[in-house]
Formats: sequence, C-alpha cells, structure tokens
Amino acid sequence: MKGLETYTVGMVGLGLMGGAIALALRSEGIIRTEGRILAYDRDPDTLEKAKAAGIIDDGMSVPEAMLGQCDLVFLCITPRALLHFMENQMAAFRPGTLITDIAGIKGSIVAAMEHTLREDLDFIPGHPMAGSELGGLAHAKSCTFQGKNYILTPLKRNKPENLALLKTLIYRMGFGRITETSPQEHDRNIAFTSQLCHVIAAALIDCEADTRITRFGGGSFEDLTRIAMLNAPMWTELFIENQEELLKRIEQFAGSLDRLKRAIAAGERTALEQRLQAVRERRAAMV
Amino acid sequence: MKGLETYTVGMVGLGLMGGAIALALRSEGIIRTEGRILAYDRDPDTLEKAKAAGIIDDGMSVPEAMLGQCDLVFLCITPRALLHFMENQMAAFRPGTLITDIAGIKGSIVAAMEHTLREDLDFIPGHPMAGSELGGLAHAKSCTFQGKNYILTPLKRNKPENLALLKTLIYRMGFGRITETSPQEHDRNIAFTSQLCHVIAAALIDCEADTRITRFGGGSFEDLTRIAMLNAPMWTELFIENQEELLKRIEQFAGSLDRLKRAIAAGERTALEQRLQAVRERRAAMV
Repeated sequence: MKGLETYTVGMVGLGLMGGAIALALRSEGIIRTEGRILAYDRDPDTLEKAKAAGIIDDGMSVPEAMLGQCDLVFLCITPRALLHFMENQMAAFRPGTLITDIAGIKGSIVAAMEHTLREDLDFIPGHPMAGSELGGLAHAKSCTFQGKNYILTPLKRNKPENLALLKTLIYRMGFGRITETSPQEHDRNIAFTSQLCHVIAAALIDCEADTRITRFGGGSFEDLTRIAMLNAPMWTELFIENQEELLKRIEQFAGSLDRLKRAIAAGERTALEQRLQAVRERRAAMV
Repeated sequence: MKGLETYTVGMVGLGLMGGAIALALRSEGIIRTEGRILAYDRDPDTLEKAKAAGIIDDGMSVPEAMLGQCDLVFLCITPRALLHFMENQMAAFRPGTLITDIAGIKGSIVAAMEHTLREDLDFIPGHPMAGSELGGLAHAKSCTFQGKNYILTPLKRNKPENLALLKTLIYRMGFGRITETSPQEHDRNIAFTSQLCHVIAAALIDCEADTRITRFGGGSFEDLTRIAMLNAPMWTELFIENQEELLKRIEQFAGSLDRLKRAIAAGERTALEQRLQAVRERRAAMV
C-alpha cells in the first residue's frame, strides 16, 4: 500500500476549513514533498494566494484536471455545493480514490452517495468539529484542530484500510477524539451542539438593536454571540437541510426556557435554586 | 486629602470578586505598605488563607472591628446579604467612609440606600463586569480585570472627589471602560447581557440529559454553556431581584427565537439568509 506521505491529496474548496486542512497536512508532515496537495476553488485568486503561501502545490480552475490525479479528496464545500459537485464530477475521479467531506449534516449526503457513488470509489463521510466565525482562507491559520472532536459516519461498504488511514490522518492533524456514529445520530446531536447554538446566538443579536450594549458586557454576552458572526449562506443551508432535528431541538430548548421563565415569574426561590444547582452539576459532568 | 495608597480598605466578603479586588489593589500598587487591606468574611478559614497568602493584611471575624478603621469599603456579597449587612452595620462605619459594592443589580440596592444610608457616609454603587464560573477565593487569581467594563450608577449626593477617586482606582485595577448610568438603565441592560445569557445557558443544559453530548461539541456548545456552571444561590437572587426586566428580556428573546424557528420551518431560504446576514452585520458593529 502506498504511503500516506506520498499521496496526492485534492482539496475541493479552499475556504477556512479546506485551507486549515491543507495547512495541517503539510505542517504536520502528513503529506511530504514526495506527495502533493492540489486544490480546486471557484476563486482563482484564492488558489494563487494559497500556492504563493506554500499551502498547496498547485491550484486548478477546472476540477477534472485535479480529480484524475488524486489518491484522496477532501470535499470542503457546503452540503448543496457538495451534492452538485458529485453529481457533475463523478466520472472524473480516479478509480479507487478515497473521498471524504466536512459537511455539518450527514443524513442527506449519505443518502445521496449511497445511491449515486461509483462502485470503485470509497466515500467516508466526516465532520471535523472545528471552525471559526472568521471565514475564508485568510483565517485558516487561526483554525486549530488540537484536541478537537471529529465525527465519522462510515458507510457499510467503506474499506477497513481506508477508514484506518483516514483516522490516522485525522489524529495526526491534531484532533483529540474521533466518534463513529450513524448519520442520523450525527444530525440529531449536531442539531443541538452546533445548529441550535447558532440559532440562539442569532436570536440574541436579533432582539437587541443597540450596538452600544457591549458597554454592559462582561464576557457572557460576548461568548454567547461570538458565533452570531455567521456565514449566512452556509448556515441557511445547514438549518434547512437539518430542519426536522433542528426544529425539535429548538422546541425542547424553548420548553426549558419557558420553565425557567415561569419559575422566575413565580419567584420560586427554592425551586429555581435547585434547578440551577442541577444544571451546574450536569454541566460539570459534561467532559 | 489623604493619598489612596495610604488608605485602609475593608473588603466585606472574600469570595471570587472580593479576593480578586484585594489582589488587584495590592499587585497594582494602589494600596501600598503605608495603607492596609482588611477583610471580613463569615468563613474564618478563608480569612486565614488570604492573610497567609498576603492578599490581605488582616482578617476580622466581626465586621464592627473592621468598619471603624476603614476609609474605603468594598461590599462584595450578594444583593440580599448586602442589604442585610447595611441594615445591621450602619452604625459601625467611620464618618466619611466611601462605600462601594459590586452587586449585579442596582435598582433595589440604590432605593434602599437612598432611604437608609447615614448622612455622613458616601455610597457609590458599582458593578465590575468581570467574573468566572469558578467561584471562591481560590479562583480569584484567574479573574482578570484587564480591559473589562465597569458600570457605576452614582447617586446625586455622591461627593465628586470620591467619584473621581473611585474611577481612578477602577482604571488602575486594569478595567478598560467605565460607564456611568442610572440604576434602571443598568438593570435593563444587565438583564440582557448577563442574566438572560445565564438563563439561556441553564436552559440549554436543562434540555439535554446525555452528558456524552460533548463528543459532538465543536466550541459553540462549550462557549454557550460555560456559564451554566453557575453559583445557584447568587443567580437565584439576581434573577428574582431583577425579575421584571429579566422576564421582558426572556420574552423578547423567545420572540426572536420563534421568528427564526418559523423561517426554518417554512424553508424560507432567502428570508432566513437575509436575517442571518443582518445578524452578522449587527454583531460586527458591536464593539
């Protein structure tokens, strides 16, 4: 089996995450000079900058030119763009290519790939739990992977050696914990830990028009609304693609909020204090 | 006028904030060896540890013994404890003492002080916008003031020279911005930037029983729920003391959340994206 360090890796999309992955592949010595990191991006300027900065070896403005050369392809584009890309480029991949993605939803992508993926390609769906409210290649350096979570939702047909190789690569990029789960479980949990949190941050900003409110900030508000600096097109996609799970989570949360509101309104000191103490203990148990 | 560095300062309560203030007064050279830092706390062990660590010069288990010596008193206890303390100790303060507090609500405290404060004492209500989810003197070192906000809600009767002195002291402790406002404006805004955020964090934890959910965390969930590690008795007091403003803020937030929920449920891509873009821009303008 060909050594990972000699692989030709193709990045589809060189935004924040594509850029951060390419950087990690090189800086951690995962892909060495015997191997190559190529990239396709719709913005030629991004490709030029990435090449000049040594993040990639070469940029391609036409995906076909790249896909035919790759051993491993990272799809680092939004879910809808990913489905569109795979529909149009399926013939361009080299037989045996290992393909993975970073999309924040898995159910609809896995369902589509199970039907349309070529028999001779191996697609392992993934979701690195890292990012930044500052998007684009320019901020890729500030997106660190150290100790972070990575979710994989392998397909039954995935080759064990490819799964093992991808996991090795993920740990070598710095991630601290890989969880293998089903696409459904992924979407259910991500609706809570990621999407609901973004909806809450957006709702918080949405309900206060005075931008001078930050004079009254002491850290909590800043922490809760950091992620309100969201990439609107991407999050719109994620919210709507995972609509069903997200709506359930919003309703659960609204129910908890309402119970707390009623305890505050009723001035039930003891009940409220007990509930807050239980929250504190549960949060402390979340490690 | 006596120099600040020679003041005898009395800390009432040596928890996280009392401890952090005492530390700053000494480490920033605000109170030097010609001056003294005294403390009263209901826990004798805390006083002993603070004295042994050089955070205070002396600890007093009886407040009267301390108050008669102080030029400046910091009340670093919860709102209800503060009102109770002032009711019982009013006679013990030395004439002319400058008193300030750090309570997270101001309306009810100011109302009480306006009626009951001795004529020869000067009370300037304050709220340092700093803290930590880790409470107690043991964590005082990790509570930094650098660049943080500080709110003052001065009374009409405050002496200008005392207000100037307190502001100097606040900046010298490291705070970056002092905002003077009314108790009502403070309570209205704090209900949003601080209390609502704590209610949201608590509601988030309240609606997910699986502590292994953190495997799916990517930073957002961790940021939004850090403050769910709350001091239950203190936050119960703050929520109930500021009930009216907090309930308004919870309702505003629930309204925004519901609007986002409906846009997601309706699958209104364009409308949702526009709303998220507006949120992003407003958050970016909050500096």
